[in-house]
Amino acid sequence: MSRTGNGKRPVNVAILGATGRVGQELLKVLDERKFPVAKLKPLASARSKDATITFQNKQYPVEQPTPESFREVDIVLASAGAEISKELAPAAVEAGAVVIDNSSAFRMSESVPLVVPEVNGHALRNHHGLIANPNCSTAQLVVVLKPLHELATLKRVIVSTYQSVSGAGKEAMDELAEQTKAVLSEEDYPPSVFQRQIAFNLIPHIDSFLDNGYTKEEDKVIKETRKILELPQLPVTCTAVRVPVAISHSESVLCEFARAISPAEARDALANCPSIEVWDSPTEGIYPTPIDAAGQDPVYVGRIRRDTSSETGLNLWIVADNLRIGAALNAVRIAEYLLEHKLLRQPVPS
Amino acid sequence: MSRTGNGKRPVNVAILGATGRVGQELLKVLDERKFPVAKLKPLASARSKDATITFQNKQYPVEQPTPESFREVDIVLASAGAEISKELAPAAVEAGAVVIDNSSAFRMSESVPLVVPEVNGHALRNHHGLIANPNCSTAQLVVVLKPLHELATLKRVIVSTYQSVSGAGKEAMDELAEQTKAVLSEEDYPPSVFQRQIAFNLIPHIDSFLDNGYTKEEDKVIKETRKILELPQLPVTCTAVRVPVAISHSESVLCEFARAISPAEARDALANCPSIEVWDSPTEGIYPTPIDAAGQDPVYVGRIRRDTSSETGLNLWIVADNLRIGAALNAVRIAEYLLEHKLLRQPVPS
Repeated sequence: MSRTGNGKRPVNVAILGATGRVGQELLKVLDERKFPVAKLKPLASARSKDATITFQNKQYPVEQPTPESFREVDIVLASAGAEISKELAPAAVEAGAVVIDNSSAFRMSESVPLVVPEVNGHALRNHHGLIANPNCSTAQLVVVLKPLHELATLKRVIVSTYQSVSGAGKEAMDELAEQTKAVLSEEDYPPSVFQRQIAFNLIPHIDSFLDNGYTKEEDKVIKETRKILELPQLPVTCTAVRVPVAISHSESVLCEFARAISPAEARDALANCPSIEVWDSPTEGIYPTPIDAAGQDPVYVGRIRRDTSSETGLNLWIVADNLRIGAALNAVRIAEYLLEHKLLRQPVPS
Repeated sequence: MSRTGNGKRPVNVAILGATGRVGQELLKVLDERKFPVAKLKPLASARSKDATITFQNKQYPVEQPTPESFREVDIVLASAGAEISKELAPAAVEAGAVVIDNSSAFRMSESVPLVVPEVNGHALRNHHGLIANPNCSTAQLVVVLKPLHELATLKRVIVSTYQSVSGAGKEAMDELAEQTKAVLSEEDYPPSVFQRQIAFNLIPHIDSFLDNGYTKEEDKVIKETRKILELPQLPVTCTAVRVPVAISHSESVLCEFARAISPAEARDALANCPSIEVWDSPTEGIYPTPIDAAGQDPVYVGRIRRDTSSETGLNLWIVADNLRIGAALNAVRIAEYLLEHKLLRQPVPS
């Protein structure tokens, strides 16, 4: 069996939803990070029937997934939505693969680790074949909350999000672009992917509504944050808003701690994290915006300042590429962690 | 002296900054509300030297303001920025006019009432010729906070804003439109009004930065809210963000109260206010967005729900036309209140 330069044995990787926005980003990230792919198996629905995928200068036909697709596959990177994951993940696990699922299907299942490797990589040691990737707004949030919690113990988190359209997929990005053109030429372009006009507008509605008035998106941020930080009682609230931005989610976050900490202390703690970049010299115009973060790997933090409404709070502004941090990059980092710590389920047949 | 149909004697009105975005909106609102204008005097800087203004089918030449411009003027509606107000308002007051100033120049002066008529109209009884209009983000916020405070006593307010570009003036609106076109055609369009690209982006930076890391805009929301609600100790915090929307500011607001209140109680209290429309049946897709509010007079509230991070909090989503609620409409409502309650300074010479 061959070994790659970084000492990791190559593995067979299936990508479920390979032609989607996150699927495309997964291929890019696997390539950039020289992930040791032995065989690649791009899978997508019938709509992508005759598509081919290019990966490292090689062409791959896109196959329609069936329970048989996962034979001899070590890792399935799934981002085809919750329904497809529910349907196919059990078969993939049955076949011996580890499924890293980007959908919400299994995130809150007790037996499924919900993981951001920098935050709770250790939870991967207990996987049973299924691993969940958090919701994109949660992923960038917990990366920042974790070091602050270690510094001063989190007591409460209040989040308002500013989420880009790419979180809703490729067609949503097209809708923003086309609808924007239409508005600029005073033409009609009724919403189709979104519930309302997104061009030059905001929609305080992401995913469907629950009985308590929250959206599922907001509920995910609340519950997934607690699960990943292993703080099941942490008071968290969230308002999630779609904004006319293509890529990167932003978050206005108020954190309350067990003790008062200075912005300088917080900056130091955050700056020590390899996944975080602190951009916080506002008088010099240094703070992150979505277009700065798009296509980049770090979670960016700025506007760190004492909360004027509490003794122990800090206000923060967090920006990250939702397709990477919140999906593709996190999934590949989980896969890397599994390889590194020999947590795959069975050796690849050679 | 003639009287108008509504029994108010006509008054002489000067508009300082008549050619700007808010100046134009002022003329529209005066007309719509049949404000009893006897003589209109549009004033603007040298840049608008040869401009004329149309008001109720009559043409008016735009004059450059001097301290002499305010003779025989009853009401000055000023929206030409803080510097111009500082320079000219004292002369106008000296000349016997009441100045309703839309700039930040005098808002926090103890002797100057800062007024949203529906909230603290009574404060107008103590004016000394100068009256301040609040910052746009504050105005729509206090309209909603006031009835909730009466219902259950406010204990804390946490605001994240989503502010449209029209808050930064006409040129800012052009920059959003032109830069958006450029981005769509992959052309360069460097920012000029804004600090950073605003097309398909967000800028967490409105007005300049203070030493404590807050922007002046955020500081205004904090301090003006306390002043208007007459709650000088109220804990308030704010993060203010510019979004690529033309008109209407939106706010994600968490209010904590002295006692727990249900969303239904809050909805009832708000629905009783003539300036407020409650749009809050989210499962039917009913919640306000910026384009719904643009050009409209109400402050819209939706997404009212119990805070999941406290015992006595409510989350709200507030949207209003910043040019009207936050500027022109509020100024004209102040003028109406002055007329109604005979609070002008001296009779107009006939």
